[in-house]
Amino acid sequence: MELYAERGFDATTVAEIAERAGLTERTFFRHYADKREVLFAGATELQELLVRQVDQAPAGMPAMDVIGAALTAMATEMFAEGHDYARQRQAIIMANADLRERELIKFAALGAAVAESLRRRGVTDPAASLAAEAGIAIFKVAFERWVSDTGQRSLAQLMLDSMAELRLVTHPEELASDESSG
Amino acid sequence: MELYAERGFDATTVAEIAERAGLTERTFFRHYADKREVLFAGATELQELLVRQVDQAPAGMPAMDVIGAALTAMATEMFAEGHDYARQRQAIIMANADLRERELIKFAALGAAVAESLRRRGVTDPAASLAAEAGIAIFKVAFERWVSDTGQRSLAQLMLDSMAELRLVTHPEELASDESSG
Repeated sequence: MELYAERGFDATTVAEIAERAGLTERTFFRHYADKREVLFAGATELQELLVRQVDQAPAGMPAMDVIGAALTAMATEMFAEGHDYARQRQAIIMANADLRERELIKFAALGAAVAESLRRRGVTDPAASLAAEAGIAIFKVAFERWVSDTGQRSLAQLMLDSMAELRLVTHPEELASDESSG
Repeated sequence: MELYAERGFDATTVAEIAERAGLTERTFFRHYADKREVLFAGATELQELLVRQVDQAPAGMPAMDVIGAALTAMATEMFAEGHDYARQRQAIIMANADLRERELIKFAALGAAVAESLRRRGVTDPAASLAAEAGIAIFKVAFERWVSDTGQRSLAQLMLDSMAELRLVTHPEELASDESSG
């Protein structure tokens, strides 16, 4: 990861990554399918954690509350630290079209897995798909704010903020009544 | 497109597509960068139409209402007919990982363009990004329902349904009060 940030993703070879990590190339490829994998190694864990949170949420909890609780739990568990790493990773990904595509695919897979988990709880479609997609939107927007920020606000807090903002956006009449009462 | 449906996307050559369309290969490549382009030729028009709708919406209209009006106008203008075509296209895309990725990229670009258009109207972030992402979620879910449906309900109607559903999902207390009053 440091090497990608120093030299750019394209210019970095697997041999260089392996050397920096104190591994042989052979060992590197035992852990990662290719050099892109290094950047997406956390995706599986992240998806499993989110799906587990959704699966284990109390029965009868509204879908969007389930999503909100899962996102904040995930943010706290996986991103309480690591702001510098996340920031560096994001810069590398944004600079490379292939990596941006891979990130999109990761998010799409995450959305599909969360929707499936909601369906297991008995949430019907289209609500399950929409709640999952809304969750991904919240995640993406909060994550972008977090990495472009100083890191003082936690990702979990930004998830809650984005969720509140989405509720306002989808219900502008509340915003209007807040303003008139304020 | 017919050829993709008959033979599969991978097995169809540009020469065959050109022949079916009564074009030379040379003319084909003057219109399309590659054989995938045929399936995504409408994406630019769609994006321009959505962005124009958002740009031209009345000043002061809440962001999500702007998105809803733009989506239904686009659905009516571009998808009032063509259910069979859309259904066939969707089947081809879903059967091919490269095409699915291209579709994701198209949706991501669309979301970014709509968010930018909302910002031009003075909608600040994160509301602009969230409203645009929510719009894309509504579009995707409504489109999938439309193509997997008999086509009796229009895409515009399914857009409205999905938008109403997203409002319910993000505000479960309304659902609860609807139920208790019903």
